Amino acid sequence: MREVTLGLLGLGNIGGGVWDLVREFGDELATRTGLRLRVKKALVLDKKIHGGKEVPDEVLTTDKDDILEDPEIQIVCEFLGGEQPAASMMLRALENGKSVVSANKMALSLHFDELREMAKKTGAGLYFEASVGGAIPVLTALQSPLIANHVEQVMGIVNGTTNYILTRMAAEGAEYEDVLKDAQRLGLAEPDPTADVEGMDAAYKISIMGSLAFHSRIYMEDVYREGITNVSAEDIAFGREMGYVLKLLAIGKDNGDSIEARVHPAFLPVDHPLARVDGSLNAIYLYGHSFKDMMLEGRGAGDAPTASAIVGDIVLAARNAVHPVAWLREDPLPVADDWQSKYFIRMKAKDAPGVLAEVTGLLAGEGISVSAMMQKGAAPGGKATLIVITHIAPEKAVRRVVEALNPEICQVENVIRVEG
Amino acid sequence: MREVTLGLLGLGNIGGGVWDLVREFGDELATRTGLRLRVKKALVLDKKIHGGKEVPDEVLTTDKDDILEDPEIQIVCEFLGGEQPAASMMLRALENGKSVVSANKMALSLHFDELREMAKKTGAGLYFEASVGGAIPVLTALQSPLIANHVEQVMGIVNGTTNYILTRMAAEGAEYEDVLKDAQRLGLAEPDPTADVEGMDAAYKISIMGSLAFHSRIYMEDVYREGITNVSAEDIAFGREMGYVLKLLAIGKDNGDSIEARVHPAFLPVDHPLARVDGSLNAIYLYGHSFKDMMLEGRGAGDAPTASAIVGDIVLAARNAVHPVAWLREDPLPVADDWQSKYFIRMKAKDAPGVLAEVTGLLAGEGISVSAMMQKGAAPGGKATLIVITHIAPEKAVRRVVEALNPEICQVENVIRVEG
Repeated sequence: MREVTLGLLGLGNIGGGVWDLVREFGDELATRTGLRLRVKKALVLDKKIHGGKEVPDEVLTTDKDDILEDPEIQIVCEFLGGEQPAASMMLRALENGKSVVSANKMALSLHFDELREMAKKTGAGLYFEASVGGAIPVLTALQSPLIANHVEQVMGIVNGTTNYILTRMAAEGAEYEDVLKDAQRLGLAEPDPTADVEGMDAAYKISIMGSLAFHSRIYMEDVYREGITNVSAEDIAFGREMGYVLKLLAIGKDNGDSIEARVHPAFLPVDHPLARVDGSLNAIYLYGHSFKDMMLEGRGAGDAPTASAIVGDIVLAARNAVHPVAWLREDPLPVADDWQSKYFIRMKAKDAPGVLAEVTGLLAGEGISVSAMMQKGAAPGGKATLIVITHIAPEKAVRRVVEALNPEICQVENVIRVEG
Repeated sequence: MREVTLGLLGLGNIGGGVWDLVREFGDELATRTGLRLRVKKALVLDKKIHGGKEVPDEVLTTDKDDILEDPEIQIVCEFLGGEQPAASMMLRALENGKSVVSANKMALSLHFDELREMAKKTGAGLYFEASVGGAIPVLTALQSPLIANHVEQVMGIVNGTTNYILTRMAAEGAEYEDVLKDAQRLGLAEPDPTADVEGMDAAYKISIMGSLAFHSRIYMEDVYREGITNVSAEDIAFGREMGYVLKLLAIGKDNGDSIEARVHPAFLPVDHPLARVDGSLNAIYLYGHSFKDMMLEGRGAGDAPTASAIVGDIVLAARNAVHPVAWLREDPLPVADDWQSKYFIRMKAKDAPGVLAEVTGLLAGEGISVSAMMQKGAAPGGKATLIVITHIAPEKAVRRVVEALNPEICQVENVIRVEG
């Protein structure tokens, strides 16, 4: 039996979940792995307020150096969240030769290069399975069992809050603002929901997952990002009529000489495997040249599922004599600012002769062909809803069409990409 | 760059797939991992007939000792299939300190104990991710990222041939024999389909996957097994009317003091994640106390997906300084010969007074309550189809009811478990 000494930076929801899992499952884990996990210190802001776990007083500390500078602590688990001081503390732990386990997608995404460099330099390990997809072992899969693949595509539902909101909007025909308020009331959305609903959380995740999948660094600022705040019940209803389900997707594609990295609402055909992933579940669809298609689905958040991934990483960190460092290209592939998709364009059009001709003419002028069109009548002389779904077309060409349309005649209400 | 010298036992479909992947992807793999894979020898029955790959003559051999006894060969990949001589060769390779990579569920399931013992003794590695679920990294997930869990349930569609047959039966309303013949014509079922359609293949897989999930050895002979040969188009149609989809499932459950391990056709509610896994796809649903529910879906067979998992294992075998050996209890938990399920019972009943009373009386006598009942009329005086779906009930009690029914009055045509 080998003792593994841990330091926890933070003891909130996830930290508390790890505390519980180590305490309740520690004996079984020791039997299975030969490793006895011991939490020596846990950093808290105030020793009196730490989430209600029964943690012995001598374990609690308010001084980060009790963890970062203690040579006995082998593995540091970071649960602070946010960019700083989390990133600096992780860097310091690595500098001191301690392996770091973290679920902090923001700090990892923004400081990936320095953290990796430091880990390489000191030989410490950097583990972050829980940062994308919670309990779903997608990063492990990419780095090891699926390593013999050109991964061509990753496409994920990686934010539970927005998936919950979109699922309820679809089920109830409700508007975004109403469902958001209810989700906040139920504790399923944050009081300030920006990071989720504006797609930032998903963008951090695609930056991390895509970097590993394509072996090329994807920086957060290069990820195209659109949240769900402009999605209306009307979009979802029209999409459904046409056989689509709306999801917030994090998409990465390797086009050979460039990479796509984007987060935006997208319609998926109802029979796509991701289309029925509802509520707060997460799922990642992958395509690789030898494994072909694969989907991994599970709990993307929650104390216990996240703790499951964290403790899995702790065991790996303790077991590995040499810590794996994913190989990334030295010159990252450029992240494309144009890409191909199908597009759902919803417009309010004057019910007058020539409107259809204007729309179809502009599309044709950009070489975009139309796969489906639907018009929902209005009162005579009023405005009709016009929906166009295009065949595969370049993003920029579609944007040019949208800009060229005369809003007096035809007002574009929403443009939603159609994937899958 | 470190050279890793491989010996291939067999060069058929999967061996050829590995040969291709190593050849085509070897440079990229070397860049990513620092490992240069080199196939030194490949065992074939006849040097002139080896699946049409362009393999240099000096690589081919008909003498197994050129691989098993060559100290330069570090990793032996076994592609012979079947129990023997595959198992003996793997054992010999391990004895000689060579790590073994195999997708051979039959040899692995039947000789797991000796192979594991030998691997432990010599410190060689035994890797078999490809033996269950093809490219799907379910065994890796169970052994590492999900290790901090009491896995309570594994439930899988792990045989592509039977899933293809059942999917087509459902889509076309066709009978088993007709679809089987067509599948054989298309090369999607073996000329002798027994191992697939009688559930043996799935049983080997649940014996392996269940052993790792529950850390307790499940022997093939303890797996309850029923194939798909008795499934009729009528069962599938009635099931669908009642909201169910029919799948051949490999099920493992940890009941604390015993384990369930069984392979049989089962109805799943249409909204169960496994219900829409169609065609030759594989998928495994898992439930663990901390990760909660998870589903992994992908290609369970095929040269390229299997080669993906094999080469993933080769990389692991080459990287690991200490090879992981999953901990299993010394006294395996007993495999239960009784369990609980819901049951779909299809009967042909005399359209006469008292028949329903007999059926419901026998069920009540065993304490089994009925959740749904459907009668489809026949000509007066003829026989009607009677379908009963029970609530959760013990398997043995249901069997007693079936045996007690008077076949003159009420003939049981099929009993199908309802899971999920």
